[in-house]
Amino acid sequence: MRLLFLGDVLGRAGRNAVCEALPDLRARLAADFVIVNGENAAGGFGITEVICQDLLDAGADVVTTGNHVWDQREALVFIGRQPRMLRPLNFPSGTPGLGAGLFRATNGADVLVLNVMGRVFMDALEDPFKMVEREITACPLKRGADAIFIDFHAEATSEKQALGAAFDGRVTAVIGTHTHVPTADARVLPGGTAYLTDAGMCGDYNSIIGMDKEEPVHRFLTRIPSGRFTPALGPATICGAFIEIDDATGLATSIVPVRDGAALGGKR
Amino acid sequence: MRLLFLGDVLGRAGRNAVCEALPDLRARLAADFVIVNGENAAGGFGITEVICQDLLDAGADVVTTGNHVWDQREALVFIGRQPRMLRPLNFPSGTPGLGAGLFRATNGADVLVLNVMGRVFMDALEDPFKMVEREITACPLKRGADAIFIDFHAEATSEKQALGAAFDGRVTAVIGTHTHVPTADARVLPGGTAYLTDAGMCGDYNSIIGMDKEEPVHRFLTRIPSGRFTPALGPATICGAFIEIDDATGLATSIVPVRDGAALGGKR
Amino acid sequence: MRLLFLGDVLGRAGRNAVCEALPDLRARLAADFVIVNGENAAGGFGITEVICQDLLDAGADVVTTGNHVWDQREALVFIGRQPRMLRPLNFPSGTPGLGAGLFRATNGADVLVLNVMGRVFMDALEDPFKMVEREITACPLKRGADAIFIDFHAEATSEKQALGAAFDGRVTAVIGTHTHVPTADARVLPGGTAYLTDAGMCGDYNSIIGMDKEEPVHRFLTRIPSGRFTPALGPATICGAFIEIDDATGLATSIVPVRDGAALGGKR
Amino acid sequence: MRLLFLGDVLGRAGRNAVCEALPDLRARLAADFVIVNGENAAGGFGITEVICQDLLDAGADVVTTGNHVWDQREALVFIGRQPRMLRPLNFPSGTPGLGAGLFRATNGADVLVLNVMGRVFMDALEDPFKMVEREITACPLKRGADAIFIDFHAEATSEKQALGAAFDGRVTAVIGTHTHVPTADARVLPGGTAYLTDAGMCGDYNSIIGMDKEEPVHRFLTRIPSGRFTPALGPATICGAFIEIDDATGLATSIVPVRDGAALGGKR
Ligand SMILES: [Fe+2]
Ligand SMILES: [Fe+2]
Ligand SMILES: [Fe+2]
Ligand SMILES: [Fe+2]
Ligand SMILES: [Fe+2]
Ligand SMILES: [Fe+2]
Ligand SMILES: [Fe+2]
Ligand SMILES: [Fe+2]
Repeated sequence: MRLLFLGDVLGRAGRNAVCEALPDLRARLAADFVIVNGENAAGGFGITEVICQDLLDAGADVVTTGNHVWDQREALVFIGRQPRMLRPLNFPSGTPGLGAGLFRATNGADVLVLNVMGRVFMDALEDPFKMVEREITACPLKRGADAIFIDFHAEATSEKQALGAAFDGRVTAVIGTHTHVPTADARVLPGGTAYLTDAGMCGDYNSIIGMDKEEPVHRFLTRIPSGRFTPALGPATICGAFIEIDDATGLATSIVPVRDGAALGGKR
Repeated sequence: MRLLFLGDVLGRAGRNAVCEALPDLRARLAADFVIVNGENAAGGFGITEVICQDLLDAGADVVTTGNHVWDQREALVFIGRQPRMLRPLNFPSGTPGLGAGLFRATNGADVLVLNVMGRVFMDALEDPFKMVEREITACPLKRGADAIFIDFHAEATSEKQALGAAFDGRVTAVIGTHTHVPTADARVLPGGTAYLTDAGMCGDYNSIIGMDKEEPVHRFLTRIPSGRFTPALGPATICGAFIEIDDATGLATSIVPVRDGAALGGKR
Repeated sequence: MRLLFLGDVLGRAGRNAVCEALPDLRARLAADFVIVNGENAAGGFGITEVICQDLLDAGADVVTTGNHVWDQREALVFIGRQPRMLRPLNFPSGTPGLGAGLFRATNGADVLVLNVMGRVFMDALEDPFKMVEREITACPLKRGADAIFIDFHAEATSEKQALGAAFDGRVTAVIGTHTHVPTADARVLPGGTAYLTDAGMCGDYNSIIGMDKEEPVHRFLTRIPSGRFTPALGPATICGAFIEIDDATGLATSIVPVRDGAALGGKR
Repeated sequence: MRLLFLGDVLGRAGRNAVCEALPDLRARLAADFVIVNGENAAGGFGITEVICQDLLDAGADVVTTGNHVWDQREALVFIGRQPRMLRPLNFPSGTPGLGAGLFRATNGADVLVLNVMGRVFMDALEDPFKMVEREITACPLKRGADAIFIDFHAEATSEKQALGAAFDGRVTAVIGTHTHVPTADARVLPGGTAYLTDAGMCGDYNSIIGMDKEEPVHRFLTRIPSGRFTPALGPATICGAFIEIDDATGLATSIVPVRDGAALGGKR
């Protein structure tokens, strides 16, 4: 089985790039299942119902989110009628929407997708380790699900690597999001779980984490906000990871970074 | 001119790997100048005089550090007699040692090396933007220095990208350290500054940021320390970046990641 | 019913002051129940079995704790055989000891004591609001307990006031600890819950939050640790609160600060 | 000499209470100099030129601020023409306005007022210890100023007590603000500096730190914003401190809390 994940889609630049490239990318990779993190798809902050549908129409099977999930207030409502969008699992019980779901891939496999947030340097949600444990105990690999994918939306590399290590061998993949910078440590952990600290964003990298450089730089220099953050609108780079899964075990056999679009290259 | 940088050397595994590989690596890349971040070289926490000398003997011209610089108390003393070791520039005035220095490369060029710490999710030091501004105003590119290298030891991707953007075109390179995970965004910024959000560590990646997995995972699960963090002792991977510099401008013409040793690869 | 609470006992100075004063204080106030926070009783960091017993012998019915509960490793063990010591309720399930208990007062009343930690500017434990809700739903005021006391060990005034407001009318008292400074806002909230943002510590106030001034001041000036924090050993002030409870409702009729010992006064 | 300080004025409730009470309070206490922290005077967030003038007209000699100083954008402009309003001293150089000023009291004395922000759990500004040192070195007690007053706008009790200890004997008073809860530790430190960890706010205490309870409680329960924070509009309590100063030394002889208005009392 073949699974494609794309990191935080940022604003119009990221959205357009993903919507244009995804049909082709999906076909080229012969992906059976596609997950896209859409938490910054609407102007950099949150996601609307229309944009969520656009990502699904372009070829995503599931849209995950993160700390920005509720930035567009309508998300609190439309998530109730859109089972293909997940919000972080570790919001308090009673929160609209779900943080986990079992979805059918095109090859007929059932993929359990978990969207979880870290707590180091982030908001105080429920324990991500405990929440993941609960979900995969209820629906274990090869007994309840043919593959288990975790989008771990977190800041600290330690917390991300610890979650990978804690569930190595029991889930197909742990891929980090949130920092908007792709890491170069994609690997299959000893137990068979594909791991990547951060997928990076889908957006314009000539920016500060996807935003126009001027305001963030100004804030660092002056410590005073002088306006809003607005998404950078230059050519976007699509970042993510492609995972091949052993159908017999549900574990990963390989993970490779996906990079498409404007150069993030080392040459001038 | 050709410059090699290696990220946080972690414990014995990282130290041995760097000391063995660096002579060859330096020769193979024909590097004129080598900088190594040694903040975790002594058992994961700080650096001793002997270890610092080992890194210099192996081919480093300068050893930079970070938040762990004083973990070995002797560092407060020996830094006074070791001008080739830097501590973060933005400690309060009166702090032992220096955070910036002008060093002669083998090609005769003068390289200004700055070691600076970020403040987002980190300790409250002096303003890194202001401190860098002060140093490069006093010793500007091509007037005071043939190349200016910044090791920006910081946690947040936003702060790292902002520092890169703020000094793009005025320094040769801004390379991040501290997260112990290499990022895949090495590039030359529009103004000519080589940039990489994090160089990654030199250490055993079958670990939690270089440490044996058991104790950190246990802490995340229980929220209770049950012992010390100890460096992982498996085969190390050397991570860093190699930068080519236009001698006419002091700006970068290319930056490529350096990766050497045990696999950080995507295959199982 | 009459309840006495004393804030974080700090080191030998605090311990001696409490052990000497408590028998008398308890008698003078005709307290039916006494709770003492002992998280800093052992040299400023944690608590030992012997010290816990000393506090109980001096007249405490229950010893509560906080973020320092495990600083003395033996606490992980002896808490299992000492039902009168509580650790914060919102550690993960499986943590040794309990965070809540029902205790018999000298007047025959059953007092439910909850020890909970805040999360703002503190460690990521379970949701304190949810945990309190669960406990008081299981054992409600006047149906399961004659009085319900919450030691809310937290940093931020907003979180403390919010917990008070959220459970106003359903618990007898919410008293904050952890900042080591008594606040001057003791009051009965509109619903009948006695509230105090922080009880203050029992220790030497000629200090930095109970510790000898030199090292903490030095760290703020230099940003470098130069030694350990050691408890200040001057004359201690006992700080806490005394609460009168309406036996018919289990709610508070009054709360007054308790202050005893070395002057914390406004005159020189 | 006699000095009156009032803590963070919060919204209309706090503003009205201060403007009504201050003329009388100033007269009754025969205060020679009055300082009021106005950072939350405009709807809870920042301060406008009109409101600043109202506070001055009511009897304040100086209006101090804090982290909310720029919430009303006009403050960046009008602070340039209002020398009696201070912003935190430790914003980067180049920031509009001043963080320190020498003002003439009604008794003819020259009072140096410093407005400084803490960094623990707060934004990364310049080192408050260094900035205070610089100012009082330039204008020392009894040589440059007859009294030196510091409004230390900070979160952590440790940082506040450390600043008090660090400058004890060299300044007249260190009074904390920002937590919106008055502390009960007003005292003259051994060196002669009046100290109070927090003055508390001037506002409606039937609230969460001055704001209507509903939204903050809801956020703690759900971790999701559902609206704006709005100031509580019930009867306000004025909180502050009154300091008597030895004219010969410029040091404090006494500090007593000031409390006026709606009850913050212990009885129901
Ligand atoms: Fe994001
Ligand atoms: Fe995010
Ligand atoms: Fe490091
Ligand atoms: Fe570091
Ligand atoms: Fe404590
Ligand atoms: Fe504590
Ligand atoms: Fe305030
Ligand atoms: Fe404030």
